[in-house]
Amino acid sequence: MINQSVDAETIFDMENVLAFLERADAIASSTELDELLEQMLALMVEIAGGASGTLYLVEGQQLVFRVVHGNPASQYLVGLRLPISIGVAGATISEARPIWVKDVNLDPRWDATIGEISNLAVRSMLSLPLQLSQQVVGVIQIFNPHRSEPRLLQLLGNRMASEVEKSRLLQKAKQRESRLSALVEIIGHIGSTLDRTQLLNMIMEYARSLLGAEASSLFLIEPASGDLILHVSTGHLNEKMQAIRLPKGKGIAGYVAGTGETVLVADVSTDSRHYANVDQKSGFATHSILAVPLTARAITLGRDRDDSVEHTIGCIEALNKIEGTFDGDDVLLLTTLARQAATVLEIATLYADVNELFFDVIQALTAAIDAKDPYTEGHSQRVSEFSVAIAEEMKLAAEFVHHLRIGAILHDVGKIGVSDGVLKKPGRLTEEEYREMKLHPSIGERILGHIRMLQQEMPVIIEHHERLDGSGYPFNLPAEKISISGRIVAVADAFDAMTSDRPYRAGLPIEEAFRRLRVGAGTEFDSQCVEALAAAYQQGKIHSQKESSAQTAALSG
Amino acid sequence: MINQSVDAETIFDMENVLAFLERADAIASSTELDELLEQMLALMVEIAGGASGTLYLVEGQQLVFRVVHGNPASQYLVGLRLPISIGVAGATISEARPIWVKDVNLDPRWDATIGEISNLAVRSMLSLPLQLSQQVVGVIQIFNPHRSEPRLLQLLGNRMASEVEKSRLLQKAKQRESRLSALVEIIGHIGSTLDRTQLLNMIMEYARSLLGAEASSLFLIEPASGDLILHVSTGHLNEKMQAIRLPKGKGIAGYVAGTGETVLVADVSTDSRHYANVDQKSGFATHSILAVPLTARAITLGRDRDDSVEHTIGCIEALNKIEGTFDGDDVLLLTTLARQAATVLEIATLYADVNELFFDVIQALTAAIDAKDPYTEGHSQRVSEFSVAIAEEMKLAAEFVHHLRIGAILHDVGKIGVSDGVLKKPGRLTEEEYREMKLHPSIGERILGHIRMLQQEMPVIIEHHERLDGSGYPFNLPAEKISISGRIVAVADAFDAMTSDRPYRAGLPIEEAFRRLRVGAGTEFDSQCVEALAAAYQQGKIHSQKESSAQTAALSG
Repeated sequence: MINQSVDAETIFDMENVLAFLERADAIASSTELDELLEQMLALMVEIAGGASGTLYLVEGQQLVFRVVHGNPASQYLVGLRLPISIGVAGATISEARPIWVKDVNLDPRWDATIGEISNLAVRSMLSLPLQLSQQVVGVIQIFNPHRSEPRLLQLLGNRMASEVEKSRLLQKAKQRESRLSALVEIIGHIGSTLDRTQLLNMIMEYARSLLGAEASSLFLIEPASGDLILHVSTGHLNEKMQAIRLPKGKGIAGYVAGTGETVLVADVSTDSRHYANVDQKSGFATHSILAVPLTARAITLGRDRDDSVEHTIGCIEALNKIEGTFDGDDVLLLTTLARQAATVLEIATLYADVNELFFDVIQALTAAIDAKDPYTEGHSQRVSEFSVAIAEEMKLAAEFVHHLRIGAILHDVGKIGVSDGVLKKPGRLTEEEYREMKLHPSIGERILGHIRMLQQEMPVIIEHHERLDGSGYPFNLPAEKISISGRIVAVADAFDAMTSDRPYRAGLPIEEAFRRLRVGAGTEFDSQCVEALAAAYQQGKIHSQKESSAQTAALSG
Repeated sequence: MINQSVDAETIFDMENVLAFLERADAIASSTELDELLEQMLALMVEIAGGASGTLYLVEGQQLVFRVVHGNPASQYLVGLRLPISIGVAGATISEARPIWVKDVNLDPRWDATIGEISNLAVRSMLSLPLQLSQQVVGVIQIFNPHRSEPRLLQLLGNRMASEVEKSRLLQKAKQRESRLSALVEIIGHIGSTLDRTQLLNMIMEYARSLLGAEASSLFLIEPASGDLILHVSTGHLNEKMQAIRLPKGKGIAGYVAGTGETVLVADVSTDSRHYANVDQKSGFATHSILAVPLTARAITLGRDRDDSVEHTIGCIEALNKIEGTFDGDDVLLLTTLARQAATVLEIATLYADVNELFFDVIQALTAAIDAKDPYTEGHSQRVSEFSVAIAEEMKLAAEFVHHLRIGAILHDVGKIGVSDGVLKKPGRLTEEEYREMKLHPSIGERILGHIRMLQQEMPVIIEHHERLDGSGYPFNLPAEKISISGRIVAVADAFDAMTSDRPYRAGLPIEEAFRRLRVGAGTEFDSQCVEALAAAYQQGKIHSQKESSAQTAALSG
């Protein structure tokens, strides 16, 4: 079919043909795709005796101008994207056969905008499909050829097509592998966090980067109302979109959270569910959305507990894919990430809940013990706050402070075992009554000392009435045997006792209390702890019992 | 070089050659690898005018007998694996060039064991490398050829080599993708479990299946001794290997857990670290081991807490790869799984620890309240056990039982607010004292009622002295307003009170207690709860105070 106007159909003998094929073979088996395409195009231009050549590859519905040979002036065209139906190249693809154009100026299919920029006096052209079975993966065009050599060129073109396909399949597979690896890494990171706020931020930033989206948003269902509350967003939305509320079922996020379905909208302007309100508030122009439900797996809580039930807690949206459009791989990745994220959020909630329960219960029970004597109401809670303030002033480690906080709340728990008559006695205690009172650290140890998870708290309970000079109780410990947490709580305890009203005297003024603590520093109290408490007080970090009551009165007044 | 003893070097003209190449092209571009190899081999045998042909592919250090053409009797050889250096095929690979054998019987390289089983009178042979750049990926052998056509055959062979490589690269990429997907799925499953025992089993079974190993073992470091304890193993080891202990640093597992390094041993008999002791005990023959440390990530605990520190808690071993040998991909997968598994195990431990802490503390504090009156010692704990037994007998949901257990432990917490004089009074209470005693449910609610995580426990605390006929306290609730948990604890509480000694009377015999409960059933007590308790007692699931003391005495006697 390609037999007009070339100098010769073919002039090569067997030796030439085999040599060309061997050169093509060497190129195909030893080079990377880009170089392969250039070298193969050069070989084909040489075989056809052409002046120059170009190579387009098909990508979706576009032709990508990939290689120019023999015409450096057109090199800048490389990378240009054209509609797949354009010009002679488009015809070559749709007809899936070689096209010979004797004079491009007389061919209505010839697209001058591409042809003329090549700056060559193009007259004739051979346009060959790169074909793989029935699929055309690209087009090679050879300009002003002297020979057509149709079978040889087609063999080389098909070999190129095979290499293009191989490279694409491998690239796709590698890309999938690398995104999956990234997902595994991300899941590892979010899985090592039990802090909900940090989790929400991590999830969003990871969702955005994994999907290559301009922005992302995370909505959580507010249990009471069923409304969706925007918790975090990334990218441009970050500042403007806080505190946006979607009424139950509204918007794409509401639909997704309500139904548990995934929604992919390539153009939100065509989707009636899109709640334009959010864009108005945020000033962000949403084009495409991939929205997946945050559905937590059923969580196995272990022995004696039911598994939690799989349930949807909200929705993640990825907004505006930066390159291309959201596809099936994106859906899979975001769904997997969301499922994992929702599960981790639930586990963080379970952990926070039981910690809250523990703290609430020990505070409530020790407050109830304190309240047996109206004069010690709130004592344990204040001693815990003072102790934490001292430790923080001393820059002690957060884990030390954590156990100190618990120990200080529980420091007087042994008073459960002291009789009411002694605890509530309005006047000074007799020798014998005082002896009973002094049992409370040991009773506290007897009550809680067997608990494995409270071992770090025991020194506080046992030692909070010991004194550096060995005159304290219950063990008259010498200074070197009194732990740092025992010393801290001793100071906090004494400060609260001094500054609180007692049946037999009013609470001391703060200054007087610190004066007395300083008098006792070194003999009775650890002076570093005393000064740390004074510093915390100076900075307004703590308040005595009377200051707290005054504050409460002022607030309610 | 291949020019002796064939009828002709080449007899094909250009038309023939192009036609053969086009046939090869069509085969290569449209078929799956297996069929492609068969069709290409057939084409090459045809070109060479041979009687038959075989194709081997190189896999690692082996030659795999892949295709037989023209000799159905040898079909059974397909799949056979041979050393890569064997026979003429081995020479073709090491020399990376075609080899012509005029008479196989005179060639010392000819391996009769392969040649003779082909059942053909093989005399001459052409052995061609399938070459890709410098790499030989396989060998084609054509028997009794009439033509050599070296350049044409080599072109086709190289095309096959290219397709083999493409297929292998894609297969490898797909396999990686699918193993990563499996890993993501596995991580999701282990990440939704907070039950340590279940976790250990899941981790092991997943590790074994993901790696394609015969067996796997999980060792955890025993904190006190530093020894490694085998916790779970899968496959053949399952039964025999429980309770094996590796002294600190011993064995490959000890090395890995101690150093945090990964160890891959292809043949344990050559590794001095292998602790053959374990194989002796288990009867399992270990050949290859991949051992990775169980290293938990640093876990973010949130506000007011330090992150936990990354640390190694044990070691996972995959034993005896079923196909091939453990490779870099295996190391990466098992390392990632182990890291995630160790982190999840740590989170499960954190969750279990705080739950244990909570239960231990409420049990200890309520026991201390009970102990103010020697006659009620252990009361709260027993009431909780009785209540749980009733609920389980009634087949109530595990989550209901969980909250019931907590509520029942706390049911008398309001006694903190009742004066010692009333609590400890040896004789019967006066009207006024009884009024004070009857305040304890309301006091309990005042102490704990504000706690968000205790709302489901409140009915127990408030209603455990209500009666179905409305004669109970504190609210004289009618039957329909008394919750099921209130009814259960009322029965459990009454049973414990009846069967325990009191200052003014000895504990009732069990039968008498049940008689009285049944008399009160319907008016005072819920009869279903009474019968459930009786059933639990009949089955030996609970013991009254006196029975427990008797048991304790017997055990210590």
